[in-house]
Amino acid sequence: MSLLDELRLPAGPVDLRTYDTNSAPGVGADKETGKQVLAELGPTLIELQTKLFASKESDDPRRMLLVLQGMDTSGKGGVLKHTVGLVDPVGVKITSFKAPTEEERAQDFLWRIEKAVPEPGYLGVFDRSHYEDVLIGRVRELAAPAEIERRYDAINDFEKRLAEDGTVILKCMLHISPKEQKKRLLARLEDPAKHWKYSPGDLDERQLWDRYQEAYEIALERTNTEYAPWYLVPSDKKWYRNLAIGELLLETLDRLGLDWPAPRFDVAEEKRRLEEDTIS
Amino acid sequence: MSLLDELRLPAGPVDLRTYDTNSAPGVGADKETGKQVLAELGPTLIELQTKLFASKESDDPRRMLLVLQGMDTSGKGGVLKHTVGLVDPVGVKITSFKAPTEEERAQDFLWRIEKAVPEPGYLGVFDRSHYEDVLIGRVRELAAPAEIERRYDAINDFEKRLAEDGTVILKCMLHISPKEQKKRLLARLEDPAKHWKYSPGDLDERQLWDRYQEAYEIALERTNTEYAPWYLVPSDKKWYRNLAIGELLLETLDRLGLDWPAPRFDVAEEKRRLEEDTIS
Repeated sequence: MSLLDELRLPAGPVDLRTYDTNSAPGVGADKETGKQVLAELGPTLIELQTKLFASKESDDPRRMLLVLQGMDTSGKGGVLKHTVGLVDPVGVKITSFKAPTEEERAQDFLWRIEKAVPEPGYLGVFDRSHYEDVLIGRVRELAAPAEIERRYDAINDFEKRLAEDGTVILKCMLHISPKEQKKRLLARLEDPAKHWKYSPGDLDERQLWDRYQEAYEIALERTNTEYAPWYLVPSDKKWYRNLAIGELLLETLDRLGLDWPAPRFDVAEEKRRLEEDTIS
Repeated sequence: MSLLDELRLPAGPVDLRTYDTNSAPGVGADKETGKQVLAELGPTLIELQTKLFASKESDDPRRMLLVLQGMDTSGKGGVLKHTVGLVDPVGVKITSFKAPTEEERAQDFLWRIEKAVPEPGYLGVFDRSHYEDVLIGRVRELAAPAEIERRYDAINDFEKRLAEDGTVILKCMLHISPKEQKKRLLARLEDPAKHWKYSPGDLDERQLWDRYQEAYEIALERTNTEYAPWYLVPSDKKWYRNLAIGELLLETLDRLGLDWPAPRFDVAEEKRRLEEDTIS
């Protein structure tokens, strides 16, 4: 069974409490072997991603978008470093979405997202995304209820358009427990090398844990489409989270059935020209 | 002796033929140990780069810009994959400059460059750069001679402004021999997995080798400033090129004397708040 099948969120209402954040589904490995297995995915991941990158040379419109969502400390940064870090950076565009600027707030919530959509051949990665606009947006009431309602459909329309335009979308929710978050926040407070990752606001958001989970459940249910499905990644185990997303990336790229593009020039003629030249 | 000192291009006129493209200065290693040494730089590189990335949290304006220039096949892509690929991709912004679009050609040559300058905390990497505008620009006479002349000073003014704004600039010329280029072009033609990297135009440019070398010599001499110095990296040996640029990056980051930023919150108070909370 592929991990894409294993971690695919089923259609219908979502109850996040029924998913064990500390599990490691579909992977017969422990921490040490898990890290090893991830490292061993590297060469295949690079080859597949390079084929994707090469395919733009034959006007193939395909590209990939990995969306990373999760509560604070769920490990979006860790996935960027350990999993996305495995592929060739020339073909990767990471966008880390922060609180919108004044200019961004003056526009539709998808305006800044649209600008970050990957070009053909690229692996785009969203570290947080338009989903914040129905997560913190909902919990903190940053927009009127009718506007929040409107956004679920707007997101589906947007993602459908991307898919039709050649974008393969992989949306991952990094699912952690509040206990694990407490441990990680404490680790940030105890290590001067991690203070910069901490903000007192993180603890304020933590107080709203249940409301965030509810907002996630609604968002996951309403935007879990065929063209942009959600994957629920148990993320209390960092090694599992990194490995699982590496495997999801690999399987998704593999299903594209990419091959090296055919040359658009006469190979034999170019060889002849090159062999005859006397530049030295 | 540091590699920054070893590879620093001396001030004054440049004769590229006096630099051995197949040498490996400042590194007592062969191919196998060289690859090993590069891999071992990884953790230190990541720590230094993460400190740079963290420093923006304390409003430190510093950022870094690595400029990669060199003839076709000199290995800009290899450096991105093997050297830049060692650091945490969240803090890296790579821009690959192609032939300018019509919109870009309607503006000053630095217009598109300016938009790609890294923000504080980031390592920006230019895969080709504004130097193309005095290289192919000069050789192919894409602009009038007076305009080409103007550009050297414009580049210096631009780079000076970046440096004053907190950008540490590391400019590397990947120096290869025409013989090595021939070998690499042939390898691209012989491997279907590399056809996408080849364009018949590469061979047309190759016919102008001497004029390109001359254009490089002029550009190197005229833009080799204290605030944005040039480093000449012998690049016939791929392993040396990757290792040397890794070492140059590391030494440059190290000289910034970065430390983890001081927290802007009361650590003890945050710990107390966290330990007292009962979210579960």
